[in-house]
Formats: sequence, structure tokens, C-alpha cells
Amino acid sequence: MKRIKLTIAYDGTDYCGWQIQPNGITVEEILNKKLKKLTGEDIHVIGASRTDSGVHALGNVAVFDTESSIPAERMAYALNQRLPDDIVIVSSKEVPLDWHPRYQDEILKTYEYHIYNAPVQNPLKRRYSAFVSFPMNVEKMREGAAYLLGEHDFVSFCNVRTSVEDTVRTVKELMIEQEGPDITIRITGNGFLYNMVRIIAGTLIRVGRGFYEPTKVKEILEARERTQAGVTAPPEGLTLVCIEYDGS
Amino acid sequence: MKRIKLTIAYDGTDYCGWQIQPNGITVEEILNKKLKKLTGEDIHVIGASRTDSGVHALGNVAVFDTESSIPAERMAYALNQRLPDDIVIVSSKEVPLDWHPRYQDEILKTYEYHIYNAPVQNPLKRRYSAFVSFPMNVEKMREGAAYLLGEHDFVSFCNVRTSVEDTVRTVKELMIEQEGPDITIRITGNGFLYNMVRIIAGTLIRVGRGFYEPTKVKEILEARERTQAGVTAPPEGLTLVCIEYDGS
Repeated sequence: MKRIKLTIAYDGTDYCGWQIQPNGITVEEILNKKLKKLTGEDIHVIGASRTDSGVHALGNVAVFDTESSIPAERMAYALNQRLPDDIVIVSSKEVPLDWHPRYQDEILKTYEYHIYNAPVQNPLKRRYSAFVSFPMNVEKMREGAAYLLGEHDFVSFCNVRTSVEDTVRTVKELMIEQEGPDITIRITGNGFLYNMVRIIAGTLIRVGRGFYEPTKVKEILEARERTQAGVTAPPEGLTLVCIEYDGS
Repeated sequence: MKRIKLTIAYDGTDYCGWQIQPNGITVEEILNKKLKKLTGEDIHVIGASRTDSGVHALGNVAVFDTESSIPAERMAYALNQRLPDDIVIVSSKEVPLDWHPRYQDEILKTYEYHIYNAPVQNPLKRRYSAFVSFPMNVEKMREGAAYLLGEHDFVSFCNVRTSVEDTVRTVKELMIEQEGPDITIRITGNGFLYNMVRIIAGTLIRVGRGFYEPTKVKEILEARERTQAGVTAPPEGLTLVCIEYDGS
């Protein structure tokens, strides 16, 4: 028996997210099915991030245990031959049998939220960016974003349907880049609450459009109330870029 | 009666190209149908570029004649309410009744060919870039591309199924840019033969991979034979960026 760690990229547009659910096809389900075909075993992958419906990934992580004789490093290639073209295994390698993708001393996740900001939508951007037609002030977004850096109770930036008790998280980096009509919010932290990145993005979009002053971000954070923040930005703008474990 | 010029962007992935044909849905067909719904008239748009199946556009151009009372400038908005989200009218304006999108004194078309060059495919790039997994030498591609600048008989870079007689065209600009794994071939000319940009891209990809020396591009050009060039690069990498008329 060996445990194999997969790094997985996917276009989330046509999936009901990562986690298996009764009402639609998910990335986890596809992986389990293709691994069963490949190995003949009943395999249930354990994922690091249960991304929402429509959210993309360049580096989600999952593990599974197998008796297969396929070398761990070849598993990526073998799976890619069978997967649909919107899911790609970036790499595969063996890890210790007790290595778990959600429970490690240090886990850093990086997300990007992409905004296409122009008067008219660009159909080549619509799958991977949120469209905002009103002019946005990126400098004000950066001012607002600065309040979120560091360790805070992010309960105000959490979906009300969550049940997690400890809502303190650390945002290590938060950068906003602009290249013509493309605005990218890049955020790295030691974990994120349910919908946290999309609520942060929705709030910063309000700042950019001038609905909120940048200081409003500080007020929302300090209010510690789940109803204070801006709307949840749409899923197509969000990509899980990478997950780093223990500094690697 | 008035003539309206549309500037049109589309994600070509799910269309059998621009031109109406019996075996699949096309952009032209969708536009005619939606214009009929909007105006009540039997409308047949005249397009500037009959892009191939799977090819994208940010600025294709079409005209149509109408008795509709909708102001020309509002036509873009009215159509966008009815169009699927992979077709967007960027702008609409009235032009003289005899203005034709394919017959003007000076027409400059700009295309971009996008290549994603990395060991493993990125599923977020697959719709709008050709994937090349082997290392590529962009400097050699630039050397090869330089031979194509200016006025030449491009018959070697033309699909054999074409019937056009005059195969002389002028390439005004040809730039190759690299940003990490993304390579973009940007080409501007006064018109392109059938599949010419994709055959140029396919040839330059061979140069980049080391199959061809850069001087091979000159040899192909001078051979003036339709069977000399590299393979036609796949449609998903190609985007018609803009069409400029008489310097505007």
C-alpha cells in the first residue's frame, strides 16, 4: 500500500465544485471514477480544498491509497490519458501513509480573484474573470486591502452558513495588480473561511467602484458580524493557485 | 433604410466558424436570428472575416441593413440582451449604405496566435491557446518570422483548398512576445489567405521546437508551393483581434 499525492488543475466552469454531491458532477467524483478504472480499486481521494461550484484550480491537492504497481510519478500521465480535458493532473508523487492534505503544521494557500473591468464584456474572459463594467479605482482597493493583512478574526468575511468555531486566520500577502482591463487580487493565507476570498473580493470591488470608502474594510473587520461585508463575488473569478506545505 | 456596422467579439469554441453552413451552428446564423427577433425583418449580415471553426474574435466586423427605429448606437446593447454569452457586440454605428466590410481601399487585419508552452497543459488555457509541451526557442521563432515581413507571394502559406488567384499579401507587423509559458504571435497585414495565419503559426512552432532552422521560413516562402510549409496550427490558438479601415 502506498499513498500518492496529486496536484490537480481544473476549469471549474462545468463542475458543481470539488466535493461529491447528489445533484451534479464534481471533480472528486471524476477522479474517483478514473482511478477505479486505472487501478481496479475502490478509491476515494481526500482533497485539500473543497472548492465551490464554478471555482477553478491550478494547484489543488489530493491523496489516495493504492496497491497499484504504477509508479507514483507515472500516475499523473496515466490519469491524464483518461481525464476530460478540463481536469489535468499537474504532478503525482508518493508521500508517507499518514500524510494528510488538510492537517499539516504549516499550510499556505494562494488564491487569485480575477476581474475584467471594461465597459463591455470580453467573451474570452467570461469563464475565468468576474465582469465589472463600472470604472474601478485600484489604488483605493489597495488601501482597503491593507487592513486585511495579518492575523484577524475574519468572521465578518465568512458565509453565514458556516459552522466553524475558530474564525481567526492570517493573511500573509494581499496584492492587487492591474494590467489594462485585467485586475487580479492575489491573496495568500494559512487558511480561509467558507467563501472568505469571494467575500473579500466582493467587498474590495465595492471599494473600487466607490460604494465603500477604503476605511469601511476596517469597520467591517472590527464589527465581527457576518452580515457586514459586501456581497460574495461570483465563482468564475476565483482560482486556487497553489497550496504550500511546511515551506515547500 | 440604414446600414449598421457591428464590431463583434466571440468565443469560437462552440461554433462551426462564422459562415452559415448546414452541419453546425455558426456566429453569422446566430446574429441573423437574433436580428430578426429584434427588428422583425429578415436580416442577413455581411461579415468581414469568415473565421474558421473554433477560431475566436475580439473585433470581427459585419454590416446589415434595417428599417428599424432603434438608434444605431443602441443596437449593440439591444442585441447583447439577446445573444448567448459567448458572443458580444462591442459597438454598433451607422455607416453609408454602400460601405462594405470586405471592399475598402485600405483594410488592416490583426490576428494573435496564442501558444501555451509548458510540460503539462493548463486547463484554464486550453480554450484560447495551442498547447506545446516541448521547449521552444522564441529567439529563433523571431528570426524565422522576420523573413515574412513585407510584401510577398504567400502561396506556400495557404491552404491547398483555396481558389484565390492573387496570393500576394503584405505583412506589416509580426511580433512574438513571451511572458512565462505564454507565447503570442501577433501579425498585422492587408489581408490573409485561407489558413495563412495558422500555417505561419504552425511553421514558426516547428522553428521554435528546432525541427526547422529559421532560414527554412525563407526557403518555404521562396518555394512558392502549397505543400512546403509546416502543419496548420490548431484553431483554438487563433483570435482575430481587430480590423482597421482606412487608418481608423
